[in-house]
Amino acid sequence: MIDFKAVDRYIEDHLQESLAELGRLVAQPSISAQGLGIQECAALVAEMLRQRGFTVSVHETAGHPIVYGEAPGNAAKTLLLYNHYDVQPPEPLELWDSPPFEPTIRDGKMYGRGVSDDKGHILCRLAALDALKAVTGSYPVKVKFLIEGEEETSSANLDSFVRNNAALLAADACIWEFGGVNHEGRPVQYLGLRGICYVELTIETAAMDAHSGLGGSIFPNAAWRLVWALNTLKDRNERILIPGFYDKALPPTARDLEMIAAQPDDSADMIERYGLKQGFLKGMIGGPDLRREEVFVPTCTICGLTSGYQGPGSKTVLPARASAKVDFRLIPDQDPEDILAKLRRHLDLNGFWDVQITYLGGTQPGRTSVDDPFVQLTLEAAREAYGVEPVVVPMVGGSGPNAVVSKTLNVPLVTAGCGYPGAQVHAPNENIVIDHFITGVKHTARIIGKFGA
Amino acid sequence: MIDFKAVDRYIEDHLQESLAELGRLVAQPSISAQGLGIQECAALVAEMLRQRGFTVSVHETAGHPIVYGEAPGNAAKTLLLYNHYDVQPPEPLELWDSPPFEPTIRDGKMYGRGVSDDKGHILCRLAALDALKAVTGSYPVKVKFLIEGEEETSSANLDSFVRNNAALLAADACIWEFGGVNHEGRPVQYLGLRGICYVELTIETAAMDAHSGLGGSIFPNAAWRLVWALNTLKDRNERILIPGFYDKALPPTARDLEMIAAQPDDSADMIERYGLKQGFLKGMIGGPDLRREEVFVPTCTICGLTSGYQGPGSKTVLPARASAKVDFRLIPDQDPEDILAKLRRHLDLNGFWDVQITYLGGTQPGRTSVDDPFVQLTLEAAREAYGVEPVVVPMVGGSGPNAVVSKTLNVPLVTAGCGYPGAQVHAPNENIVIDHFITGVKHTARIIGKFGA
Repeated sequence: MIDFKAVDRYIEDHLQESLAELGRLVAQPSISAQGLGIQECAALVAEMLRQRGFTVSVHETAGHPIVYGEAPGNAAKTLLLYNHYDVQPPEPLELWDSPPFEPTIRDGKMYGRGVSDDKGHILCRLAALDALKAVTGSYPVKVKFLIEGEEETSSANLDSFVRNNAALLAADACIWEFGGVNHEGRPVQYLGLRGICYVELTIETAAMDAHSGLGGSIFPNAAWRLVWALNTLKDRNERILIPGFYDKALPPTARDLEMIAAQPDDSADMIERYGLKQGFLKGMIGGPDLRREEVFVPTCTICGLTSGYQGPGSKTVLPARASAKVDFRLIPDQDPEDILAKLRRHLDLNGFWDVQITYLGGTQPGRTSVDDPFVQLTLEAAREAYGVEPVVVPMVGGSGPNAVVSKTLNVPLVTAGCGYPGAQVHAPNENIVIDHFITGVKHTARIIGKFGA
Repeated sequence: MIDFKAVDRYIEDHLQESLAELGRLVAQPSISAQGLGIQECAALVAEMLRQRGFTVSVHETAGHPIVYGEAPGNAAKTLLLYNHYDVQPPEPLELWDSPPFEPTIRDGKMYGRGVSDDKGHILCRLAALDALKAVTGSYPVKVKFLIEGEEETSSANLDSFVRNNAALLAADACIWEFGGVNHEGRPVQYLGLRGICYVELTIETAAMDAHSGLGGSIFPNAAWRLVWALNTLKDRNERILIPGFYDKALPPTARDLEMIAAQPDDSADMIERYGLKQGFLKGMIGGPDLRREEVFVPTCTICGLTSGYQGPGSKTVLPARASAKVDFRLIPDQDPEDILAKLRRHLDLNGFWDVQITYLGGTQPGRTSVDDPFVQLTLEAAREAYGVEPVVVPMVGGSGPNAVVSKTLNVPLVTAGCGYPGAQVHAPNENIVIDHFITGVKHTARIIGKFGA
């Protein structure tokens, strides 16, 4: 029987060391979309595992390397820990109050790109393991770390890695990359993630830009063609118009709707935090309907638009080139490659054969059953660490390669960590609350300890 | 009677001095859209006039200064010369073969931003005046230079300057900013310019960007709203959908269509020069129909689009802000302020009250009659200087503040100069052919000389 009070004390006593190590990790840029600092960050993560006695291997892929680390434990069971060392681009830089790669502590928070997503969670796992080993002399279970470097660019090479190394990665359960509390400070257990299909749509109508006075009424305009093509994808009522898009999308179950109904309402918090001047879409004002729409509806989001002159003032140019970044969030049982094929067909049939689609990555949606014993164990650990009843969220709006792991390795996934709604992941001033970090580590230690019991 | 052979000889003998002076002017950046080098360039132009004995004044405006210069002549008549010292932004820089503000001569051409539009034409006027004075001892007519610094940003302050200084600027005729030859090397006489209404459309849906997984199905997306708003402006058949847009647009007259029919066909040249992979709009393949469409149809051109993430790879962001630069090219008797009001009303009625319109400038369309004696004199001068019959173009696709001058001062406008279809104005590798420059100066000298006769 593990003395979790002693574990908690160790975690508190060694907080400064954990934060220092986190600071070192955040200070190392690792922007997967731009290929910046990737090798250096992978080496740093490998070093952090080796220092703890893990057997580490760094696996090259067609993209960024995957760091794998393994350490023995007391019980015969094996726990897989999935995380990622890559981060989102920090732009727009001018909106950061402190530089994104100079981790800064102020007002009980640590700020920096990746401090929550996902480097804080790597440290959360390591601090929990450190405390368990210090108190009990060993790890309660065999531990396998799978830490990739392309999560923020849709994990293009994780799927083949997991398939090709299924024996190496074999485990009985998995703690997923993130977790934490909701806007009320209650721990949240996430049981599913939407999938994603991320594409760039590009049109090139000429070899070079023209004077808009010359070509305005006789030359094709790449920006106009992009606008018209995008307009065929979704109507103003948010209905996606690609034929067959919704075919495989399953409606939420009665059990899903029960869990959604039991979730607290954070709509007012969202309105204020994001400054949503026009409120939510479709006149929604909150409650279970909003929460259902948030996660059980697949989406088509324009993430970026670029064409022609974008500087100050006016330039009378007719653009030869235009492009859009578009992501589709998918729900069970939609499949990114199926959506990609339907998108191509839809554009062709609408006369947009000249729109080039670049597939920038995709993952399938994935879910774990609330009735799995490992989920129940994680909920019990949360009750103890947080002292309140956890919130169970059947599906999260975001995406990750959870299906790659849960389906291929046939393991249940749970979440735990230092996230919270104000973390500003993917946005300027990303941060964690240090008190949340402490509790997240305690929760993680209890999951691992109880799993070995 | 002026000895034009002696004038021509002087022009040829002093070519290197003219090109050196042009090089000095091009080397001085003067990007009106970005406010770069404006004061310095205005001072340089003023100095160039003062050195020639002009009485010069530099007039501050709400935007960039206007340079005015005046010199006496033999005849009682007064000739106004309109030019502009500002240039378009040079971006994209990587497509220039030599730096845009380091004028370079190679293969009989001079390259640099503004070398054609419009600094080459300033030198064309000056070299013609220098030659006339050297040969005859004085200027044939009183000369007034009006050289503004905001032509490339829709001449926002020219209209009020001309209205407030109508007596100062009073003249009997005007040579407009540009001119030159067509793709066959034949001189072209332009008799009209379309107007323009240039706007930036901006939407802001939230105080900050969100994670696309969080907000994709519940937050308004600025990029989507921009796409939908733009889509209401023009359909895929190029029909502009703003109610009343075409109300004041006059069809070309029978005389216009005659002139258009007499113009040579440069469609194959355009296809090749711009690399138009899909040819012209609406399946047009050239001939008088294409030329009519090119200039006698008003347009709505997206000049730029910007929103969200535009870097390499993928970023899963839901943009809070999106904007488009849009220009409308107008034909007689459309009016930019009328179009602006109709655009606002159209967006409001379509539910896009959240689209902010920033009016970045506009000019009215303007025309001079082919039967005006000054036009006939200019055509005669062209026959002599070029040795071939000039092409008369009733309307040009581009815009400029010609109506501001022609209507307010009640003067006929003609064109002459060193332009040609390969000049790449507003694009990388802007250039003039030096042989064209020589003939353009000779033509200009003949217009001025004959006007004083």
